[in-house]
Amino acid sequence: MKQALEGVRVLDFSQLLQGPYATQMMGDLGADVIKVERNGSGDIFRKMTFFNQWIAGDESPCFMAWNRNKRSLAINIKSEEGKKIIYKLVEEADVVVENFRPGVMARLGYGYEDLKKINPGIIYCSASGWGDDGPYLTRPGQDLLVQSVSGALMTSGKKSDGPVAIGTALCDQVNALNSVYAILAALYYREKTGKGQEIKTNLLSSAIAFQMQDYFTIQNLGRTFERPESKIGHPGNGAPFGTYQTKDGYLTIAMSPWPTLVEALGDPSLMRYNDLQVLFDERDKIHGIIEKITLTKTTDEWLEIMLGLDLWVAKVNDQKDVEKDPQVVHNQTFVDIEHPKAGKVKVTNIPFKMSETPGQIKRPSPMIGEHGAEILEEIGYDAETIDKLLSENVISIEKIK
Amino acid sequence: MKQALEGVRVLDFSQLLQGPYATQMMGDLGADVIKVERNGSGDIFRKMTFFNQWIAGDESPCFMAWNRNKRSLAINIKSEEGKKIIYKLVEEADVVVENFRPGVMARLGYGYEDLKKINPGIIYCSASGWGDDGPYLTRPGQDLLVQSVSGALMTSGKKSDGPVAIGTALCDQVNALNSVYAILAALYYREKTGKGQEIKTNLLSSAIAFQMQDYFTIQNLGRTFERPESKIGHPGNGAPFGTYQTKDGYLTIAMSPWPTLVEALGDPSLMRYNDLQVLFDERDKIHGIIEKITLTKTTDEWLEIMLGLDLWVAKVNDQKDVEKDPQVVHNQTFVDIEHPKAGKVKVTNIPFKMSETPGQIKRPSPMIGEHGAEILEEIGYDAETIDKLLSENVISIEKIK
Repeated sequence: MKQALEGVRVLDFSQLLQGPYATQMMGDLGADVIKVERNGSGDIFRKMTFFNQWIAGDESPCFMAWNRNKRSLAINIKSEEGKKIIYKLVEEADVVVENFRPGVMARLGYGYEDLKKINPGIIYCSASGWGDDGPYLTRPGQDLLVQSVSGALMTSGKKSDGPVAIGTALCDQVNALNSVYAILAALYYREKTGKGQEIKTNLLSSAIAFQMQDYFTIQNLGRTFERPESKIGHPGNGAPFGTYQTKDGYLTIAMSPWPTLVEALGDPSLMRYNDLQVLFDERDKIHGIIEKITLTKTTDEWLEIMLGLDLWVAKVNDQKDVEKDPQVVHNQTFVDIEHPKAGKVKVTNIPFKMSETPGQIKRPSPMIGEHGAEILEEIGYDAETIDKLLSENVISIEKIK
Repeated sequence: MKQALEGVRVLDFSQLLQGPYATQMMGDLGADVIKVERNGSGDIFRKMTFFNQWIAGDESPCFMAWNRNKRSLAINIKSEEGKKIIYKLVEEADVVVENFRPGVMARLGYGYEDLKKINPGIIYCSASGWGDDGPYLTRPGQDLLVQSVSGALMTSGKKSDGPVAIGTALCDQVNALNSVYAILAALYYREKTGKGQEIKTNLLSSAIAFQMQDYFTIQNLGRTFERPESKIGHPGNGAPFGTYQTKDGYLTIAMSPWPTLVEALGDPSLMRYNDLQVLFDERDKIHGIIEKITLTKTTDEWLEIMLGLDLWVAKVNDQKDVEKDPQVVHNQTFVDIEHPKAGKVKVTNIPFKMSETPGQIKRPSPMIGEHGAEILEEIGYDAETIDKLLSENVISIEKIK
């Protein structure tokens, strides 16, 4: 079966999380993504991990998570020979993605103005932390730093907690999604008109756009969100919306008609709170009252009672239990693939179905420069020249130990 | 200037947050989005708000935030005349988006199989909470419920907190982004081949894919993330990564070389922790030691010292202060538009730049059925018939009071 982005070639100069996630999404739908890595050492994310632990000796789960469906070319892009190779690849490329600090690519001869001379139809997407210019231009644009400036740290948890970091790379990942959104729109436009263009995304704008509803409320209603002191699930919502401890775990109750919830909880006296304003104003107190009752039964017992009354409830999973959740199993959310060094690894599947052009995981994350020789062959280099480029350290190919 | 999705018509049957955000993104890049709303009352998000407060009497900030750049057609899609109109619109549509529970659209005669008979090139995107079938099919698929099942509630805050809800509609919004990613890829494919297709997205798979790096680590390193008890910013990271109270606010410190940070903090004895394993294992204790020092100066003082040493730091903004942040001002992140009823409203700008086809905010969120007459005229209805449809309550057009 065909894939939606078959025939699209992406030249990917990005590293760490944001750019690699964006290009992985294109690879998942069939684009040929050539990951241009630093000669020898590769993407610096290969040297970062969690808990100071590694897979198969020295492979990073962080790197592996965001680099499937790509081919790797490890190359010294500052060398003359390296530049010749990159320029040659640009001729056949549709999309370039990079996430260096603004200006770095241009200084190396790979800015949009340089590359569009070679290929006027190129779609060139740069991602920065803060924007392509402005007062924070030279500041580090790491995810948690951008979360901090974007206001996102004041949206979760309790008010008395102070800032609460969102435990995923929120800004990197949302900007990756926005980058793909812009790139695919540009590809569509190029099909219609033949015209390429430059796209500039940044983590800060993506992080704020992700809080669009909050900002719309704050700026147009003139009222700031104050986080609750209880486990009410959103600063703008009243009880019962939130999470509740049970006898053996946690239960989430979303928007649910109060009288029905009172019926489920079995304490008719709670009808005294049956007023939207009271449920908002006294949410912390009401949360506590509800939780005293939810503590008396297990999560499954509450699910049975409450789902039976059409209340909006769910259990709270620990991350380690998610792969066993019946719906997750049904959805085939996790699949095994083979990695040349780590053997069988489990990866998260493409999160949607396309009837005509399904996403596919065809390749694990590459070794450093693994596909260097085949990529150079494709653009006309012979075996002898490739050996020479290897021995001169213009390109490198990692050997599996 | 042209827009990337000019000429693309989206027929949008969705309501609440997920679908409307997806179609708004297409409208931001120039697609003609026709929002098909319930005759009379419209999108049910129009009746939901925060703090039990409203804009201009009865307008919802939640609705307004996700529905700019759309035209509204309020119509009884169950009536025979209504169905004729929808089928006529399908002939000219490129994309259909809906987020009813699985099966509802088909029962009404608007499933993919029905609509592709009218327009074989249609791209039809359905979003559900849990998946298009499986054990949770009939369960409510609201954002916080899906966060709960996806493991996301165990990623932020402190371990002793139990579940910590992420204070944005994480699953809705990420699935909106994934839906746009799939739809635009399908549009590109249709340009190449003429073929339409059906896309099925769901909140649960999107929420898990958003934690891809966590799941890759858990499943392949065999170790579960445990949240810290301090304000270390990610369960997998060691000190100093996290947020710190200062004399007048909060400071975030991301990955920074320990010796340089020790220099900035001015206490050489801290060099005894200069070991990655120790910085991970004793992160809570070390966080506390650092915070005692950060409390002695203001955030701006620390920024000056630490940015001067190339440390990765940023201030933490409250949401209410974000619009005054110098980089946010520079980026023109917030812009004013005119709303027919609320007057001037402030909205979040499109979060990226496209050199050839910039995003534009051309319309505020519509009144219920505001564009009903003009849309029907475009497909050949005359004024008399439109009046008849109005008087028979097949369509409705809200009057501004």
